[in-house]
Amino acid sequence: MSDNRIVIIGGDAAGMSAAAKIRRKQPDREILVLEKTPYTSYSACGIPYYIGGLIDDVDQLVARSPETFRNKYEIDVRTEHEVTEIDPESQRVRISGTGRQETTEAYDQLLIATGARPYCPNLPGTNCEGIFGLSTLASGIRVQKFIEQHKPQTAVVVGGGYIGLEMAEALVRQNLDVSLVQRGPEVMGTLDPDMGKLVSQALRDVGVTLYLSEELTAFESVDGQLSAVVTDKRTLPADLVILGMGVEPNSGLADAAGVGLGEEQAIKVDQQMRTDTSQIWAAGDCVATVQRLTGQPIYIALGTIANKQGVVAGTNLAGGKASFPGVVGTAVSKICKVEVARTGLQEKELKDLEIDYITESIKTKTRAGYYPGAGAITVKLIAESNSGRLLGAQIVGMEGAAKRIDIIATALTAGMTVADIVDLDLSYAPPFSPVWDPVQTAARQLIKKI
Amino acid sequence: MSDNRIVIIGGDAAGMSAAAKIRRKQPDREILVLEKTPYTSYSACGIPYYIGGLIDDVDQLVARSPETFRNKYEIDVRTEHEVTEIDPESQRVRISGTGRQETTEAYDQLLIATGARPYCPNLPGTNCEGIFGLSTLASGIRVQKFIEQHKPQTAVVVGGGYIGLEMAEALVRQNLDVSLVQRGPEVMGTLDPDMGKLVSQALRDVGVTLYLSEELTAFESVDGQLSAVVTDKRTLPADLVILGMGVEPNSGLADAAGVGLGEEQAIKVDQQMRTDTSQIWAAGDCVATVQRLTGQPIYIALGTIANKQGVVAGTNLAGGKASFPGVVGTAVSKICKVEVARTGLQEKELKDLEIDYITESIKTKTRAGYYPGAGAITVKLIAESNSGRLLGAQIVGMEGAAKRIDIIATALTAGMTVADIVDLDLSYAPPFSPVWDPVQTAARQLIKKI
Repeated sequence: MSDNRIVIIGGDAAGMSAAAKIRRKQPDREILVLEKTPYTSYSACGIPYYIGGLIDDVDQLVARSPETFRNKYEIDVRTEHEVTEIDPESQRVRISGTGRQETTEAYDQLLIATGARPYCPNLPGTNCEGIFGLSTLASGIRVQKFIEQHKPQTAVVVGGGYIGLEMAEALVRQNLDVSLVQRGPEVMGTLDPDMGKLVSQALRDVGVTLYLSEELTAFESVDGQLSAVVTDKRTLPADLVILGMGVEPNSGLADAAGVGLGEEQAIKVDQQMRTDTSQIWAAGDCVATVQRLTGQPIYIALGTIANKQGVVAGTNLAGGKASFPGVVGTAVSKICKVEVARTGLQEKELKDLEIDYITESIKTKTRAGYYPGAGAITVKLIAESNSGRLLGAQIVGMEGAAKRIDIIATALTAGMTVADIVDLDLSYAPPFSPVWDPVQTAARQLIKKI
Repeated sequence: MSDNRIVIIGGDAAGMSAAAKIRRKQPDREILVLEKTPYTSYSACGIPYYIGGLIDDVDQLVARSPETFRNKYEIDVRTEHEVTEIDPESQRVRISGTGRQETTEAYDQLLIATGARPYCPNLPGTNCEGIFGLSTLASGIRVQKFIEQHKPQTAVVVGGGYIGLEMAEALVRQNLDVSLVQRGPEVMGTLDPDMGKLVSQALRDVGVTLYLSEELTAFESVDGQLSAVVTDKRTLPADLVILGMGVEPNSGLADAAGVGLGEEQAIKVDQQMRTDTSQIWAAGDCVATVQRLTGQPIYIALGTIANKQGVVAGTNLAGGKASFPGVVGTAVSKICKVEVARTGLQEKELKDLEIDYITESIKTKTRAGYYPGAGAITVKLIAESNSGRLLGAQIVGMEGAAKRIDIIATALTAGMTVADIVDLDLSYAPPFSPVWDPVQTAARQLIKKI
């Protein structure tokens, strides 16, 4: 297999993780990567910190440059090469490039790692200048340049997910007057509203004005330049808008080639990251995965998943054996000083699945109460009513709070019950935890309801 | 059962956790607690931070005072009451008290929660003034008063375990000239030497002089006042000595009453915290427990274990059902800025058990490399050679490093393999982790050796 040619569409997390893995396993394999932007292997998750001024140089967000891949890995990386068509019959891809003739390239095996794009609603005024979605590094640089050149005073973030909140914080750091419009009753819809409420408050505390349970209806502009955001309740003056309404998989290329799609129009793959089309694989933000707790398909675009899937795809493409078992739905974020984490299923999912569940929330401290820097932490646990099997957790708190979610992510994967959590031998010392870790304090309360 | 009288010997973590649990389950139960010091429910783990000046008032270390227990819990707590004898035949305990006549008290059920004491070697000069062990809050106050009154210039810590290292840091904070004598090749013998080495270096970095692979042989004194510590290699001038050579269970009372002892002379109990003697239970630092990974008895004195065992004993004494399944050997500590954690079995234990194992250590960052405050973290994983079953982990690193040990503690409890760790859906965002969590980076390297 090693004299075959592999073509990878997309040079970020999934694509380059796969490429690097193939190179390590097959030193002589011909690998061609086609990336439409000028960058490879960058941290899209770092963009809000670049815009917020925590990171000076955008190059710091690039883990490995195209040159590194070319020179050190001997991978043929072609940036600013956009694939416009996949032909599974002839096993060729068509490529357009700025100021360049259209060409085609042959593949023996193809990996689609085209990522995702911010959801952009089809509303009046959507095309005016000053409205930005964030996905690629290039899009982050565009926002940064816009701020430098136009010196906007007021910003509206539409959508209260991770990107929206991190961007709201970044813009506050840049001294903008920031509002956030969110359709749901609280920000962070991946939390239950009782926990999301704590995050809403954290945003207000740093000066973000929240408009909750409000729907975006239009944008207003003057001479093609954004001037206001219109919701179903009001008009908000705005020099800059960040769209944080979620992302959509870049699955159009695959779809046009007849590759099967699944959940939320993401590319359908098996655990080996194979699509339903011969010699075509896919990985990262463009594919659907499986929620391990339910076995049901789920679409989640996260860098950590993309990296893992890239390694799995790369291993298999290089003749090895690997599989990606799915996710339990873990995510974490930091909004100013407040840490937020979640894993597993949330209440509305459980209601949809008609699973009987019990919940408990407790508030305690991140460290021993007397130890300097002990901060508030709220932990919510969710378990199945009769069995006590753990189903999910959400954490909001100060420094040191959020990473505790990994205990629950691990326990969910192992199928543990609430009683198992109480019995865990977790680490304790005053600088790190109260004598009962907060997740165990929550479990001790929840167990009383079983 | 609720009209029976329960007597508890010892009013700290295990004893008072049990007392509080019994009170909640049985509002009318007669509960008598006999505590030889003036304090109840204090955090012995907080003593180094009190001595180091991080905590101003020793009262902050008292979670619940005797008055709180008396008034709020209606528990008859008698402080400065030392039990000198248990008579299982007549079901009575004998009590001595300063300036008070000896008395006896009857019990229907007895809980022994007498804790542990610092190991004090029987060497020339051991009794001179200026040598301190640390276990009770009273012992911490004695050290603090000694420092205030005698203004010692040089201190020698003997023993490089958690207490020794935390006290070395505390004394450096108080501007003493601090040396540490350790019998083993590196400090922190609960880590393998390759990881302990990193902790040794952290101590040197804050100005502690280390004398490793050196044995304490005597103390020298002038007029009954400590003047020097003698090892097999040198004489170190010392105004103050802290003994950090480990602890021994306070099991003498139980032993004299014919209650069976187990590992390291600690009281033998079953999973319900029952001793082998009718109507006598025991919990906390005075009992032996079980290493869940091997099923073998183990003696570990830690506040978190004592609290859990106290709750289990209390539940059972109040007619409920609970059991303590044992430990996996998790512990964590902070030495200046360096965080240290361990869980499971270490190499020397595996050699003794003749288990074939593989190990891998990796060095990476606590956060995304570009995120401010990203610090070094070294993770060592240990697994069974053929099965890949996880056996242990050790972590040394900067802020945010150590609590990751809980992922492994949970995984060990669930019997996970190294491959299972790679597949975990752990939380990622730049302020918290590289895109592959360091424990997964270690697992990805280790899996290559299976």
